[in-house]
Amino acid sequence: MHIQINPVGNMNLLSQSEVDQLQHSVSSALYNLYRSCSLAVLNAGSNTDDAEAIHQQYHSFEIHVLRRERGVKLDLINPPTDAFVDDKIIRGIREHLSAVLRDILFMHSRYKTMPTSSQGITDATFDILRNANIILPETEPNLVTCWGGHSISHDEYKYTKAVGYQLGLRGFNICTGCGPGAMKGPMKGATIGHAKQRIKDGRYIGLTEPSIIAAEPPNPIVNELVIMPDIEKRLEAFVRISHGIIIFPGGAGTAEELLYILGILLHEKNAVQHFPIILTGPANAIEYFNEIDAFIGATLGKKAQSLYKIVVDDPVKVAQLMKSDLDQVLAHRKSTGDAFHFNWSLVIAEDFQHPFEPSHDNMANLNISHELPTAELAANLRRVFSGIVAGNVKYSGIKAIREFGPFHISGDKKIMALMDKLLASFVSQHRMKLPGNKYIPCYKVIEH
Amino acid sequence: MHIQINPVGNMNLLSQSEVDQLQHSVSSALYNLYRSCSLAVLNAGSNTDDAEAIHQQYHSFEIHVLRRERGVKLDLINPPTDAFVDDKIIRGIREHLSAVLRDILFMHSRYKTMPTSSQGITDATFDILRNANIILPETEPNLVTCWGGHSISHDEYKYTKAVGYQLGLRGFNICTGCGPGAMKGPMKGATIGHAKQRIKDGRYIGLTEPSIIAAEPPNPIVNELVIMPDIEKRLEAFVRISHGIIIFPGGAGTAEELLYILGILLHEKNAVQHFPIILTGPANAIEYFNEIDAFIGATLGKKAQSLYKIVVDDPVKVAQLMKSDLDQVLAHRKSTGDAFHFNWSLVIAEDFQHPFEPSHDNMANLNISHELPTAELAANLRRVFSGIVAGNVKYSGIKAIREFGPFHISGDKKIMALMDKLLASFVSQHRMKLPGNKYIPCYKVIEH
Amino acid sequence: MHIQINPVGNMNLLSQSEVDQLQHSVSSALYNLYRSCSLAVLNAGSNTDDAEAIHQQYHSFEIHVLRRERGVKLDLINPPTDAFVDDKIIRGIREHLSAVLRDILFMHSRYKTMPTSSQGITDATFDILRNANIILPETEPNLVTCWGGHSISHDEYKYTKAVGYQLGLRGFNICTGCGPGAMKGPMKGATIGHAKQRIKDGRYIGLTEPSIIAAEPPNPIVNELVIMPDIEKRLEAFVRISHGIIIFPGGAGTAEELLYILGILLHEKNAVQHFPIILTGPANAIEYFNEIDAFIGATLGKKAQSLYKIVVDDPVKVAQLMKSDLDQVLAHRKSTGDAFHFNWSLVIAEDFQHPFEPSHDNMANLNISHELPTAELAANLRRVFSGIVAGNVKYSGIKAIREFGPFHISGDKKIMALMDKLLASFVSQHRMKLPGNKYIPCYKVIEH
Amino acid sequence: MHIQINPVGNMNLLSQSEVDQLQHSVSSALYNLYRSCSLAVLNAGSNTDDAEAIHQQYHSFEIHVLRRERGVKLDLINPPTDAFVDDKIIRGIREHLSAVLRDILFMHSRYKTMPTSSQGITDATFDILRNANIILPETEPNLVTCWGGHSISHDEYKYTKAVGYQLGLRGFNICTGCGPGAMKGPMKGATIGHAKQRIKDGRYIGLTEPSIIAAEPPNPIVNELVIMPDIEKRLEAFVRISHGIIIFPGGAGTAEELLYILGILLHEKNAVQHFPIILTGPANAIEYFNEIDAFIGATLGKKAQSLYKIVVDDPVKVAQLMKSDLDQVLAHRKSTGDAFHFNWSLVIAEDFQHPFEPSHDNMANLNISHELPTAELAANLRRVFSGIVAGNVKYSGIKAIREFGPFHISGDKKIMALMDKLLASFVSQHRMKLPGNKYIPCYKVIEH
Repeated sequence: MHIQINPVGNMNLLSQSEVDQLQHSVSSALYNLYRSCSLAVLNAGSNTDDAEAIHQQYHSFEIHVLRRERGVKLDLINPPTDAFVDDKIIRGIREHLSAVLRDILFMHSRYKTMPTSSQGITDATFDILRNANIILPETEPNLVTCWGGHSISHDEYKYTKAVGYQLGLRGFNICTGCGPGAMKGPMKGATIGHAKQRIKDGRYIGLTEPSIIAAEPPNPIVNELVIMPDIEKRLEAFVRISHGIIIFPGGAGTAEELLYILGILLHEKNAVQHFPIILTGPANAIEYFNEIDAFIGATLGKKAQSLYKIVVDDPVKVAQLMKSDLDQVLAHRKSTGDAFHFNWSLVIAEDFQHPFEPSHDNMANLNISHELPTAELAANLRRVFSGIVAGNVKYSGIKAIREFGPFHISGDKKIMALMDKLLASFVSQHRMKLPGNKYIPCYKVIEH
Repeated sequence: MHIQINPVGNMNLLSQSEVDQLQHSVSSALYNLYRSCSLAVLNAGSNTDDAEAIHQQYHSFEIHVLRRERGVKLDLINPPTDAFVDDKIIRGIREHLSAVLRDILFMHSRYKTMPTSSQGITDATFDILRNANIILPETEPNLVTCWGGHSISHDEYKYTKAVGYQLGLRGFNICTGCGPGAMKGPMKGATIGHAKQRIKDGRYIGLTEPSIIAAEPPNPIVNELVIMPDIEKRLEAFVRISHGIIIFPGGAGTAEELLYILGILLHEKNAVQHFPIILTGPANAIEYFNEIDAFIGATLGKKAQSLYKIVVDDPVKVAQLMKSDLDQVLAHRKSTGDAFHFNWSLVIAEDFQHPFEPSHDNMANLNISHELPTAELAANLRRVFSGIVAGNVKYSGIKAIREFGPFHISGDKKIMALMDKLLASFVSQHRMKLPGNKYIPCYKVIEH
Repeated sequence: MHIQINPVGNMNLLSQSEVDQLQHSVSSALYNLYRSCSLAVLNAGSNTDDAEAIHQQYHSFEIHVLRRERGVKLDLINPPTDAFVDDKIIRGIREHLSAVLRDILFMHSRYKTMPTSSQGITDATFDILRNANIILPETEPNLVTCWGGHSISHDEYKYTKAVGYQLGLRGFNICTGCGPGAMKGPMKGATIGHAKQRIKDGRYIGLTEPSIIAAEPPNPIVNELVIMPDIEKRLEAFVRISHGIIIFPGGAGTAEELLYILGILLHEKNAVQHFPIILTGPANAIEYFNEIDAFIGATLGKKAQSLYKIVVDDPVKVAQLMKSDLDQVLAHRKSTGDAFHFNWSLVIAEDFQHPFEPSHDNMANLNISHELPTAELAANLRRVFSGIVAGNVKYSGIKAIREFGPFHISGDKKIMALMDKLLASFVSQHRMKLPGNKYIPCYKVIEH
Repeated sequence: MHIQINPVGNMNLLSQSEVDQLQHSVSSALYNLYRSCSLAVLNAGSNTDDAEAIHQQYHSFEIHVLRRERGVKLDLINPPTDAFVDDKIIRGIREHLSAVLRDILFMHSRYKTMPTSSQGITDATFDILRNANIILPETEPNLVTCWGGHSISHDEYKYTKAVGYQLGLRGFNICTGCGPGAMKGPMKGATIGHAKQRIKDGRYIGLTEPSIIAAEPPNPIVNELVIMPDIEKRLEAFVRISHGIIIFPGGAGTAEELLYILGILLHEKNAVQHFPIILTGPANAIEYFNEIDAFIGATLGKKAQSLYKIVVDDPVKVAQLMKSDLDQVLAHRKSTGDAFHFNWSLVIAEDFQHPFEPSHDNMANLNISHELPTAELAANLRRVFSGIVAGNVKYSGIKAIREFGPFHISGDKKIMALMDKLLASFVSQHRMKLPGNKYIPCYKVIEH
């Protein structure tokens, strides 16, 4: 199969040097990055979360940027066929391909080396989002981020749709991390809610990054896609542009996200922030939230537990709570003069900003101890779960696990026991990976 | 509860005489018509198809038209609460209220008496649709009407969504008769398909009429609603503005619709028309279609059977068939110079145009006989099913049945036997009315 | 020359009976009306105000309505060539042709006979404007009507542009009677003002009627054209939809308009109305306004004079005055609950509503006397000037004058002397007709 | 006077480091550049072209960038009052202020040092235009650049409006160098033409650069403004984005532009290019064009003369010629696969790309000789006129002339004699500067 498509928006006009940079070349890191992200968005219809398997299946896929009278064309060789309807690419996927082109080029030309200072990282995060046209200061501030597992039960999926529907009826826009499950459901629900309210400019923002995009490709409903440079900037983007967060049941990735936002909000300078967090799921998810809540209580303490509410089986209440909390968020922003659409005043410690490379050594060396300050403990716990996600579904992680065996996670006996139990429940509830094959843990918990 | 809302579009400006006409007055037929249609659209969230029950439940509902600086306001007293989200009316329902206002006023001021000639009826149908802004000559012709039951199984409902989704991915717009079930599913599916293709002006047209609107109120996704004066003009509207028809499983109403379109297409002057008709459902609906097909074969003959295709459990194929058929439809319209958006050249015999009043007498006197010309037989069979719909869910029909007992339907022995069987299967499959109470037939089949 | 064009908007879809009504037929009054109005808008580029001459010049012009796949086409035979740029019709004129089609058909189908009651006339005026989509209740109320001569000096023309520019900079929309001179200048000026303020939906409304359209065809800048049924409904439309009126120098038509609005505002029930009227012109127009003002003072009295302000040579002040007056207008409408976009509460006596036919008899019989109530005197004076406009530039008027000689105008000696003087100044200032030929008065003033 | 305004579009959201860069600081070159360009666009209504005088008059002007909830605000202290209508800034000028902010920040952050290779300069030119959203590949290619004097006679000004009107009627968009005279007239004319054709997205592109913007500020009709880094990139931008050029009468700047485009087109690799150039003016400009034509003939030869057409007093013909030439331009682009909206294939020698600093030394050292290759001669002649523009109206040029006396221009006797004559005619026709004071030449021609 061989097909040519037009990128959308400004991306169909590139300079000669930009076109040159993206030329097909097996040895070019930029081309390989561009190719693998493009492949991921084209593969949105697939049902696997195994990045390595996708890589194998489409080894003959190529993408070429060609110059034409009306701008550039993308020449696709052997793309996944699910991206097409009767041989015509789905418009949403065409937009995603254009977003990949935009973000890869922008990061490359603007940030040959990423800034390392805290302010520099925040400015770069802002810069990338602005270039992607995500920050629209003249629109109403009403963006809810939905986190949760990509591998969830049918009941839970229906529940995420119901919450999205109620949010959509109330005019909320949705942001998720792309991918299936809890990241797709709220968008589908909100689409119907928006349709009933005749909201034609509903926003379904997907934030991803190169290492996760293959396992969790953006559903075509995502109408604003951004490829952030790494997982930490992606997390920073979520919390700076959102006005509230809803967390559905999930696995290691969801735990990572919850620990990230709690770790940040525990910073004393953030005590004045209003940032609504709601954990919610259908009736049969109550056990799941009890476990999560207990883990947070035992590791980060009561203060951390006070930062979120748990709502069981009540989509209307979730949406109403978010609505009333939003009023407080905006009142706070107004009183402090902070931007409505990018929360500059939220303090994010460097611990949460610097990229964490989940190598076997780095994983083994993570200090998990009650003796650490709570925020630092949260940061390290976040890294543990981040590593597990990599070992489960990311290309490089899967390869490393195959080569060197499971990551060793060690720390305080008590915490390790809790973690072992929590991870085991993720496994037994099929939250680690999409069902299909038997899940073999990529980690080994070692109690000190 | 007491709430005021603004109509949308032009309808918020009325002349003094128009406002006067709609004044609340128990003795005014116009006010009562306006009130009952308004109530029906406000009651969209309900789960009953019993017009009489709705009437009882909301006997204290009133609607007043008030003049204000920026036009009129609608003052609602004791409206159904499902129309509101956190005390704010759903925008889609606000539009439906405005459509009711528009159509009731237009019919009243323009057609004090409806035309009775065939051409006059067609012109009036056109005039009402044009006034409702349904006919958009500069848009692509791609409107598919979906017919089917309001009371269908969950499997069938999911299937109608899947077909709608595939139609939406291919850019089709959807027209249905409003109401739940097969009339809502395709619109929800198409909404998701349109979202993925970034089609922001997707059309979800609902055609209804005053006697059916209460039992089958428009879902808020319907973004273009028209209240036609009667069932016959509503049917004529369907076939003149559509480019193809998909028929899902259903009950008496669906049978009425199928008989209507077949009866028309059997007219010799329509032999040159291209009008795709696809009967489709999930795998377990095959039995249903076999019965319908057999009934058509036994009553209208092989030629009628050749006018439709039956596709089982294949939404993609349905959409692809419709797409390729559409090309032929447009080619035919071009070659004959007929309008793309209103099929003037289709001949509809007066038998199918004149309103049929399903009184006990009229029902009893219907001639159902193989001795009739096929088109006339189709017309009479259509009337039988139309009467059964009235007896099942329409306000006046339910009242008449309660007072005088079931309609008597009589005719050729052979046809009556088939009809009895068909109706019995509708009953056993819960297609007559929404489940809840036991269904008591409103008809009695009498074989001559 | 033979050319086919598409109407715009909804007008490209007509019913069969509508197409039939407009069929070319020398004996059809409707066709002749349709043809002559269409000819007038096509002739916008011409430089004559002699309706009879235009009639002669384009006696071979024909217009046919044809049905096609995407609606109707208009087939033009021998149209004026100024309507075309490189053989393509100017889009603005295409819209005007569509407006003619819309209004002629609407009046014919809706008002076979026009209502004669005061309320009925007002409702019909509203109905026609609404059908033409003129009344947009959700937009800001800011419509200024500009009246003034079609035949004015270059200095005066430049001044009308300057006023329009200042109005445009302040966001005002413009309404005029179509035609050249003071009816075109403000629109051109406002176009530049709107461009600088990035107002893309600036409104340039032209109100005309069949007997004046040929002499004063709409400039293509007019982007909303309405053909009212007669001069009186056109005047009523002006005052009901405007929020203020600016009067530039002009001739008999301008005098008619000034007398109309003063006559209405003198009605005691209109004492509470706020309706800004500004008479303005360049420095050398001061003499002109002094004469007008004196005439008003001597006929209608001081109270009438207090209803307008005279501003000389100060476009900025005119626009600023209108802006501050507008605030009062809206405050008044709010306090009374009247519509922002159609002034229902303004009382217009029947004297000003019933069509006046300027036959020689009617003109001779007009009672012009100080013994009349002021409003009735204003009404009759209005009729005098209306008749003179007809004698100057309207087809039937010119014919009547040629056949029967000048109209005889008689009345109180003192008023007649003033009128004679005023008319003489119009003649000497070339305000009666566009320069070209020597002006021969169509009237004779007879003092009792 | 002290006023705060919101920038438009994306520019109201800046990162903290961007806001910091623009902080008011007398010693900051970036702030001073930003301040002086902002002052220039605010001063659009003034009637002087003396950059130094403006500088003096508004020495107390300051501009501050402030962060607020909905993005940044611009705080203006003592701005020119002509930018405001009733104390509200004209929207067009607000957009220009935002364009200044956008371009100054972009150049600073992206190009700390400008590239010096030919390809690098072209890529940067493209990059700046793309960032300014000038290149819209999905729109029709129809951009005409109009060059000509800022100081022209009233007749010539009216003629530029007439040409703009005819271009606008034919759907052309307009690009000029900002400023009054021949750069404003075509835009005003096109605005009216576009209004008649209902073209709501007409483009009035202004290309300027920091040293000329004060003397030739953008008229508020300019709806897309770009501040290029220097005069050479501005010229390159003109020729790469335009599809044709119209040259009206003008002075030294116009001569510079004509020499630039001819010098480029004389490059042998550009022989295949189609690039329509039309010199045009009213009847009394014929003498002017004869002189220009003779100068070109005597310096660059017949081949250069064959690259343009001269049309006298015929706006319709100019527009029709441009239309038919456009068809060839697009055919050529298609056949070569070059972009419709940025002419990559045009070869521009480095001589025409590198910034020329018009110091007294550089001016004196310019080699003007028939012994040079024609293109090089054109490049140097271009520099001569560029220097004269600087000496006439640019801030640094005026200062240098006052300090060191007139530039010395020397070269071949024959060429110098022609140049002296041409410049003298510019002086006598008041083309050098806006009338007001007596013009004192900033140059001295020295014949070798």
